Amino acid sequence: MDIHETTPTKRSGGRKAMARPYSGYLQRTPPEPERRLTEVGPGTPMGEYFRRFWHPICLSEEIGDVPKNIRILGEDLIVFRDKSGNVGLFQPYCCHRGAHLENAIVSERGLRCCYHGWLFDVDGTVLETPGEPPHSRLKEKVFQGAYPAIEIKGLVHAYMGPSELQPHPPHYDLFDVPGAKFSPFSTPYPNNWLQSHENNVDPVHTVFLHGRITEHFGEPFAVLPHIVWDVSHNGDGLHHLDGRRIDPDTVWIRFVHTLVPGSSFIPSTWELGDAPLYHQRTLYMRFTVPTDDENTNVLGWRVHGEGFPGGHPEQMGPGRTDMEGQVDRADTLSYEEMQLTPDDFQAQATLWGGQTLPFHKSEHLGTTDRGVTLMRKTYQNILDGKVPEAFPKPATEEPDGPKARINYSFDSVVNVKALTDKDADFEMIGKLGKEMADAAIEVAESTDDQAERDQKTKAAIKAVEAAYQAKYQSV
Amino acid sequence: MDIHETTPTKRSGGRKAMARPYSGYLQRTPPEPERRLTEVGPGTPMGEYFRRFWHPICLSEEIGDVPKNIRILGEDLIVFRDKSGNVGLFQPYCCHRGAHLENAIVSERGLRCCYHGWLFDVDGTVLETPGEPPHSRLKEKVFQGAYPAIEIKGLVHAYMGPSELQPHPPHYDLFDVPGAKFSPFSTPYPNNWLQSHENNVDPVHTVFLHGRITEHFGEPFAVLPHIVWDVSHNGDGLHHLDGRRIDPDTVWIRFVHTLVPGSSFIPSTWELGDAPLYHQRTLYMRFTVPTDDENTNVLGWRVHGEGFPGGHPEQMGPGRTDMEGQVDRADTLSYEEMQLTPDDFQAQATLWGGQTLPFHKSEHLGTTDRGVTLMRKTYQNILDGKVPEAFPKPATEEPDGPKARINYSFDSVVNVKALTDKDADFEMIGKLGKEMADAAIEVAESTDDQAERDQKTKAAIKAVEAAYQAKYQSV
Amino acid sequence: MDIHETTPTKRSGGRKAMARPYSGYLQRTPPEPERRLTEVGPGTPMGEYFRRFWHPICLSEEIGDVPKNIRILGEDLIVFRDKSGNVGLFQPYCCHRGAHLENAIVSERGLRCCYHGWLFDVDGTVLETPGEPPHSRLKEKVFQGAYPAIEIKGLVHAYMGPSELQPHPPHYDLFDVPGAKFSPFSTPYPNNWLQSHENNVDPVHTVFLHGRITEHFGEPFAVLPHIVWDVSHNGDGLHHLDGRRIDPDTVWIRFVHTLVPGSSFIPSTWELGDAPLYHQRTLYMRFTVPTDDENTNVLGWRVHGEGFPGGHPEQMGPGRTDMEGQVDRADTLSYEEMQLTPDDFQAQATLWGGQTLPFHKSEHLGTTDRGVTLMRKTYQNILDGKVPEAFPKPATEEPDGPKARINYSFDSVVNVKALTDKDADFEMIGKLGKEMADAAIEVAESTDDQAERDQKTKAAIKAVEAAYQAKYQSV
Repeated sequence: MDIHETTPTKRSGGRKAMARPYSGYLQRTPPEPERRLTEVGPGTPMGEYFRRFWHPICLSEEIGDVPKNIRILGEDLIVFRDKSGNVGLFQPYCCHRGAHLENAIVSERGLRCCYHGWLFDVDGTVLETPGEPPHSRLKEKVFQGAYPAIEIKGLVHAYMGPSELQPHPPHYDLFDVPGAKFSPFSTPYPNNWLQSHENNVDPVHTVFLHGRITEHFGEPFAVLPHIVWDVSHNGDGLHHLDGRRIDPDTVWIRFVHTLVPGSSFIPSTWELGDAPLYHQRTLYMRFTVPTDDENTNVLGWRVHGEGFPGGHPEQMGPGRTDMEGQVDRADTLSYEEMQLTPDDFQAQATLWGGQTLPFHKSEHLGTTDRGVTLMRKTYQNILDGKVPEAFPKPATEEPDGPKARINYSFDSVVNVKALTDKDADFEMIGKLGKEMADAAIEVAESTDDQAERDQKTKAAIKAVEAAYQAKYQSV
Repeated sequence: MDIHETTPTKRSGGRKAMARPYSGYLQRTPPEPERRLTEVGPGTPMGEYFRRFWHPICLSEEIGDVPKNIRILGEDLIVFRDKSGNVGLFQPYCCHRGAHLENAIVSERGLRCCYHGWLFDVDGTVLETPGEPPHSRLKEKVFQGAYPAIEIKGLVHAYMGPSELQPHPPHYDLFDVPGAKFSPFSTPYPNNWLQSHENNVDPVHTVFLHGRITEHFGEPFAVLPHIVWDVSHNGDGLHHLDGRRIDPDTVWIRFVHTLVPGSSFIPSTWELGDAPLYHQRTLYMRFTVPTDDENTNVLGWRVHGEGFPGGHPEQMGPGRTDMEGQVDRADTLSYEEMQLTPDDFQAQATLWGGQTLPFHKSEHLGTTDRGVTLMRKTYQNILDGKVPEAFPKPATEEPDGPKARINYSFDSVVNVKALTDKDADFEMIGKLGKEMADAAIEVAESTDDQAERDQKTKAAIKAVEAAYQAKYQSV
Repeated sequence: MDIHETTPTKRSGGRKAMARPYSGYLQRTPPEPERRLTEVGPGTPMGEYFRRFWHPICLSEEIGDVPKNIRILGEDLIVFRDKSGNVGLFQPYCCHRGAHLENAIVSERGLRCCYHGWLFDVDGTVLETPGEPPHSRLKEKVFQGAYPAIEIKGLVHAYMGPSELQPHPPHYDLFDVPGAKFSPFSTPYPNNWLQSHENNVDPVHTVFLHGRITEHFGEPFAVLPHIVWDVSHNGDGLHHLDGRRIDPDTVWIRFVHTLVPGSSFIPSTWELGDAPLYHQRTLYMRFTVPTDDENTNVLGWRVHGEGFPGGHPEQMGPGRTDMEGQVDRADTLSYEEMQLTPDDFQAQATLWGGQTLPFHKSEHLGTTDRGVTLMRKTYQNILDGKVPEAFPKPATEEPDGPKARINYSFDSVVNVKALTDKDADFEMIGKLGKEMADAAIEVAESTDDQAERDQKTKAAIKAVEAAYQAKYQSV
């Protein structure tokens, strides 16, 4: 008997043949991983798309007296702040002989290499080549590779794309809310960026992982919602509308909006109570920033202060957040303890073995994965050049400064009594949410004045609540 | 002078040219490693051969409340036991989105993924997709990759081959010995499987490594035996017969039988005393199970109880054994202490650098390596399809259940006085052993009744002893 | 818009296009590394050149009761000393079955493998194959791969080249200085050999890294010297002449000579005082020995005793030296403390990321790098076969024993008053140094008697001092 006759290395008959119990022997050969949406290094399609935007790369407080190593979009760089307060982001090897500039000396102006004392300004200009003869013009012809970097509300931002397409640093609508405060944070994950960002359009995992299996969030999160997914503006973002009945009198509508390339605006993750709450806006501004193909950092601001109650914003910082389940517990728990109380590090971070490109061809998606499917299709369209709305304008085309980036995310808790028929109630909640969301979007697009926007949105949502109370009380 | 003229990167003149002192410069280029007998991944010849058999993969006691990662034949899997007592062996990435099932929740029936709550039965069937709509038929079309697994006497066994060729789980002749007890154990090694299994047909290394350099076993093991190697049944196993004179009155005959693909049945490893001992059977049933191409686990049962005296069977467990020199001491000894008292981890586990495929082309074998040469030839014949006896029958061809796997291993200590001439005595011992072994084999093949077998074998061997006492006393 | 249109993966327009601020986006693609001068494995041009020489490989004191693993020129080997005092250097896998000989037993004569007890003499001859039959001739046909090794003044030396070209073990001129003592040391570096050796012809990094940024050496080292670089004898070595005015009355002339393939002879690294010092010779004999392509060991002797005052020679040993900045401080300092006080481990050892072949094509060299450029050109010439002087003679061509290897390195501190014009003074110092160096070379080539050489050189340099005092006092 020829041993090779018993070796079917190909999936004989494909997916149909494997659809039976004890099918392990027929599923041993992994397919090709997904690359187009996931690879982020220089020159890759998604990498070049990410590079069109400014990104937060670390917290201001992480930069001290010495340069800091940092890896962004597969590039190893160093970031520093000179004694005059200017931030620099350099390719790490000195353009003279290649010495690592993490060991360079932070100076009054710029950074001085420790090997032969060359001094660089934050834009890569060589200010001094002290060993060269006085008449030397070498420093005019050589530049250290550098990227523009600035600090915004405690987050260092960088732009790593082509100079001629550089947009203004971002301005978000929430910045203009009176009384809003912004505490920076970062939470690293050991997985590809797309797995982290897909979670933002997957409210079903929230129900199971965060709501029922390990109780990270408040009780209402364990209720399976009515969900509608859609894109905003042809693909500059996606949103999902989740409607839940939390008791016979109360409906919770949650609208979560994400923007390209990897931003998400998340409302609360704790119980909201049953008092009416018409328009609680984003409490977490989160930016998914690829470290490389296998690692991701999610940086952002925790919004707090007047109008943004709850939680523990004072806990935010580098590697720290008050959102449950977002920090690796390996230093505090045993492996088995983590297995018994899984969070994102045991779920999203482990797909296909964790630190690898994901294998979409091995998935079996259901209706609950519609958001993920829509997100992938949207990004494919963007890379195909079909969504001009998804690209930031170069600063040269916006002489008056940047337009604010608008997100619609909100929580609402309204008093609408339950219908007797559960299925009819579920559909009614879906309609209710849609009307509230449409109203919120309309107001958001109509004014830059954030106080006015909040007041008008509350009124509009209250009106929808009243209409539904009238319509369905009598049913 | 052209520097390249002094660079002979090829072995000039081959082995002959290198056969001189200070030949280092001519031996720098390593050859190709051996692959056919050593690679065990899916689709490899030896890997597919191993997959025709059930194998022990871990001890039952190693499976607790959470799934356990395990690597077998180059495949990463997870093993678990649900609360109903059924064991499951899964490919580790959930067939939904790929979350790692080591973090799945062990349930009353089956295993529930922590990401979206899908519930799987031990055969890979999807019992629940809780987020999907009630009418969803997705769970009928999707299966988690799974392999059959059962527990036998405290060892979890798995079958990873083609379903249609699946044999009955194994039954060993020793199971039917009245009063025999079986304590499971495992001892991992950081080397390719073949290096571990070759040790089982290399009684010469036992003399030097375990007998003279580091004294792991009893004193008689340091005596160089008369050795005869042969195959059983055309190649379903190999055995070696070792004859030693341990004092002027006493001869120790040891018969060690291995079975395909990697089983060995070892008698004692301590001093047997000089009282007559006609038929001491196997005390260690050992199964060499490849973890991958560079690592191996040897699992098995320590046989003890009535008729199996000696040693410390209570010491057996995961990573624990009462056989000396089989456990890595890196946590208890310094590197130098291990170098000064070498065991299998400093010998067999280090061939060609340790965790690598072995380089048979760089060996220089002698007469003492005949067992190794015979083992390799036998496995080549098996892979060439020349040894049908070496393949287990599919269960479909054995409707009445499995035939017991028979092993012949035994120790005998008999009183036969030494001949004056040392060489003649050595030859006589060889003949004595052969007659005893032939008698033991004949009885073993003649009956399934293990009590009867033991009694008849003892009588036959006693008769051989008597014949030799008569014949050679008078010389 | 096609995303690919924004992806210039190639350096558009080359170095000119990148010569501007914020040029990071255009510099992301690394070029090919330098291989010809840096790769040292078997069969590589530089590897085969290094193999023409004897090299120190470890200190005698590092060899104890067990074999020691060692990696030289990309080859993993073991070194040992048998109980008769003979040193052996073996390829590490036993020629029988491949067991690692680090676990072999050091014997009265030779080394005994722990697996089957084969005994090897230090030249690789098999003395015993104890398991084989008495008449076996196997041991006559098999040899363990071995290299010649001897001990010289506490350093184990090895020759790893072709046997027929083996030179005599080296003899250095300093060995013949009456009263000179030699303390062995080694200092490993995590970088390619060339980066370490280039430092020896880069007195400018000494000014900045060791003199101004972190003060490793005495104050005068912080003065930028007048430097002249040149080769000796068409390329059997390089030297640089550094002239410094250390006060209005005193000039310090330092002459540093390196020899192929990687030797450097370094005078003091502390303040010399201002008393006249005519001819202070080498205090550090250093030999750059490639471990592999990414790691280097610098071994050598610290010269001390009568005529070689200063420093702390008692500190020398394996991984220890009294020369500042040459030992990795990672076990004693935090990462940030090392960043703030950089030494060679933060400069030379980090080029292009550290453990990698260097990328010469990414450098931008200036006039201060002339020594480095000259060194690379010299080695290219050697590998091109243009410098027969750079190859050691085979012992067969030197029947009377080796000629001593001569190095000219010295420090001189002389009293020559400063000229008023700084530029003129700088030029005068250059001329002064050249006359002194030429005189020292002439004497060194004229006699093997080291006492006579020292006396004549002192006289010659004193005469140059007198001439300059006369000439320039009156200016």
